[in-house]
Amino acid sequence: MSAVFKYVRFIYYLVNADNEEVKMSREPNVIYVGRKPPMNYVLGIITSFSGSNAEEVTLKARGQAITTAVDAVEITRHRFMKDLGISKISLGTEEMPPREGEGGARNVSTIEITLTKEAKPKEEAKKPKKSK
Amino acid sequence: MSAVFKYVRFIYYLVNADNEEVKMSREPNVIYVGRKPPMNYVLGIITSFSGSNAEEVTLKARGQAITTAVDAVEITRHRFMKDLGISKISLGTEEMPPREGEGGARNVSTIEITLTKEAKPKEEAKKPKKSK
Repeated sequence: MSAVFKYVRFIYYLVNADNEEVKMSREPNVIYVGRKPPMNYVLGIITSFSGSNAEEVTLKARGQAITTAVDAVEITRHRFMKDLGISKISLGTEEMPPREGEGGARNVSTIEITLTKEAKPKEEAKKPKKSK
Repeated sequence: MSAVFKYVRFIYYLVNADNEEVKMSREPNVIYVGRKPPMNYVLGIITSFSGSNAEEVTLKARGQAITTAVDAVEITRHRFMKDLGISKISLGTEEMPPREGEGGARNVSTIEITLTKEAKPKEEAKKPKKSK
């Protein structure tokens, strides 16, 4: 498994070499999901778990990025970390400042997904299962 | 409250008069969220609760519609039904047939959000946080 992590971290650095980095917040183990492709956040999740040995990682997203956050979680669970569990999902609303030329604040939906490495002994399923 | 419901249902029929209806599945109290604006599904949620006196309503969405589903839930909770609770959220992956001219199946993320009317006396839903 650690070989996989090393490989993934290597790819992660390649991907982010010319790119701005996936935004890690000052709070440890919180990843803000924005407009990058889901794979960037997948790599962010994996490096958080492997690099800092975190027990929990939280993804935060708002607006259209909610879909990206869900995609990142699903890709990570199905392809890379079979032992990953979702311990909490919460929805919310944030008031954003109005866009230029518009009056009034606009509300944006948010999601927070908290992931945990399950304590179970690692059972590595080598081939990804086909989900229905 | 019932006056509000009547008003909302009236608006709902107006909105859907020239429109195809929000898709209600054969399973009772399941709403499939697609490409319509969130307000259509808000009205769908409210009519499910008021019309059939359902205890629970489930929203199902996949792909980009996940954001619409979250929007619909948040709008319903903040504007129309302050006593609405989220009893369960689950994420998943579905394999879709490939698009024309593309090989291989593609995976799409899904979300299911189950809503319940809480028995509690009305506590106002939290006001939207102002984002920093």
